Amino acid sequence: MGGDHAPDVIVNGADIARERYPGTSFLLFGDEARLKALVDKRKGLAQVLEIVPAEDAVLAEDKPSYALRRRRKSSMWLAVEAAAQGRADTIVSAGNTGALLAISMFAMRMLEGADRPALASFMPTARGESVMLDLGANLECDADNLAQFAVMGSVFAQILLGLDKPKVGLLNVGSEELKGREEVRQAAAWLRRENSPVSFHGFVEGNDIGAGVADVVVTDGFTGNIALKSIEGTAKLYTQFVRDAFRTSTLAKLGYLFASGAWSKLRIRVDPRRYNGGVFLGLNGVCVKSHGGTDALGFAYAIGVSVDLVRYDYKSKLVEGLARLREITSATETPAASLQATGGTA
Amino acid sequence: MGGDHAPDVIVNGADIARERYPGTSFLLFGDEARLKALVDKRKGLAQVLEIVPAEDAVLAEDKPSYALRRRRKSSMWLAVEAAAQGRADTIVSAGNTGALLAISMFAMRMLEGADRPALASFMPTARGESVMLDLGANLECDADNLAQFAVMGSVFAQILLGLDKPKVGLLNVGSEELKGREEVRQAAAWLRRENSPVSFHGFVEGNDIGAGVADVVVTDGFTGNIALKSIEGTAKLYTQFVRDAFRTSTLAKLGYLFASGAWSKLRIRVDPRRYNGGVFLGLNGVCVKSHGGTDALGFAYAIGVSVDLVRYDYKSKLVEGLARLREITSATETPAASLQATGGTA
Repeated sequence: MGGDHAPDVIVNGADIARERYPGTSFLLFGDEARLKALVDKRKGLAQVLEIVPAEDAVLAEDKPSYALRRRRKSSMWLAVEAAAQGRADTIVSAGNTGALLAISMFAMRMLEGADRPALASFMPTARGESVMLDLGANLECDADNLAQFAVMGSVFAQILLGLDKPKVGLLNVGSEELKGREEVRQAAAWLRRENSPVSFHGFVEGNDIGAGVADVVVTDGFTGNIALKSIEGTAKLYTQFVRDAFRTSTLAKLGYLFASGAWSKLRIRVDPRRYNGGVFLGLNGVCVKSHGGTDALGFAYAIGVSVDLVRYDYKSKLVEGLARLREITSATETPAASLQATGGTA
Repeated sequence: MGGDHAPDVIVNGADIARERYPGTSFLLFGDEARLKALVDKRKGLAQVLEIVPAEDAVLAEDKPSYALRRRRKSSMWLAVEAAAQGRADTIVSAGNTGALLAISMFAMRMLEGADRPALASFMPTARGESVMLDLGANLECDADNLAQFAVMGSVFAQILLGLDKPKVGLLNVGSEELKGREEVRQAAAWLRRENSPVSFHGFVEGNDIGAGVADVVVTDGFTGNIALKSIEGTAKLYTQFVRDAFRTSTLAKLGYLFASGAWSKLRIRVDPRRYNGGVFLGLNGVCVKSHGGTDALGFAYAIGVSVDLVRYDYKSKLVEGLARLREITSATETPAASLQATGGTA
């Protein structure tokens, strides 16, 4: 029942995902009568889908704490619970992000070795696509959080981007070892070790995100949220600039028409639906957050992300990576003191 | 002597600025023989320019602390000193940013009421241009710093964008009053007051930068640096995407040619030289940092920024604004405690 176009987009998205990922079956939570009317029109889907009635729904304006305590009978709560209790392998929602995070943390708990969940997503780059996290789940992060996010992002990129050893970069204000905030430098010192569970590229800067310098870009949720939205805003601004430029003369308009095939290709390349599916990593379960404004195709992509994470055993891979990280961090005696001794400053 | 194409670009830039800003005269610091050869070719410039020999130069790879202590006879040090001692009204450099900041802070000191300098610059937006700060001078900022940056950015926008009451936004992860880090919420609480020295818009998000929602965007130097570079990287990525799209077919290539006038207009609109001239605000003096890779036109823009700041009395306006801010912040008893009482969370 979540998102701007629920439940139609959810049902249509499930129908697309059913064809793309054979063997998948669905539990659909929400208003039984409305859902039944939609599902009954789709025979193939009806055969692999079970409707679970939910009398309540989390609203877009609900605060996370309110949804957690007062929406126990909502479609979101019941769906997360089903995934937490093993009746489903994964939960996908287009609803309220903060509520989904709060409910998932409460119902699923954290995975062993993960202190905080991080919101991860794909970004288009000059070289293909990268994974970026945290995009807003944690406003303040210490070195442990950042190092754990690096492992989460690496496992996520292995599975979703099909990379053996994704290159992990830590977002910073410079690429030199001594630059940046202390927690960032400490996390880098850990990830740089020989027995590191990730293939650490080093520090990356804001412009390296679009260049695709790293396969995984790790940062705190405050910076990550602002960087993500800055990127989205700039993409929108440039699209407008280009459109304006082509409106300035008849010749330019004609050129635009001639190039319409090129425009379609560009649109496909940066289609936000292809990058739909933010994932809360670090939970003891798979929870995928679709954009609230997406269409059925975008929602099917989000379902696809969750299916891949389950099929390729994301949880055990992450537990293993986090255990390897803990060997490094627990062996470090007085990290802050030793770092200061190197004279590292901004 | 600073920047990738010094001293040619500096001399040519001064020559352009001389015509644009009549009444301006120059002190040019550096290698006397090289500078003299360049200046002598430009008669008009030679009449309003004096060469001040400097036997040393700050290198791009110099650490700020090294430049500060060991490059006392460099062109940068002598130029900053001239501005600090009143022999010049302003200093413009295309050299090492960190060194310029360190030397300027040491030689000029801070303006009354300003605790830390902030690096500010212009950004192209859908509505024209905005000012953003801090772009990297301070990796960690408290509420006082952010509120002071708001005043600095507001005075800067008044002068450079010609706005009576520039709308000031604080960069955050959401627009609601209770969202975000504590220092951001505290700064907002101060700026929102009736007797605030700035016209406070409220919180802005990353995508609001490109949309031009605020005339001034305020953030800490870590986030600001990453947001700025993310924006630059995305602009570059989209330029490449558009170029690639037009290479896909003969028809598209023809369309590109037809639209060449439109492309030129677009290029002018986003010409980075028009946004050249980062300024260190909050110093007891005017110090403008040009991009190291700029050309003569870009350097002339940077000179123009410094001329405007001096002509429109930026220092007294800023001192006045900071005094008004201090009335608010000093009257606030226990800001952190009272904020927590409202139950503000991420």
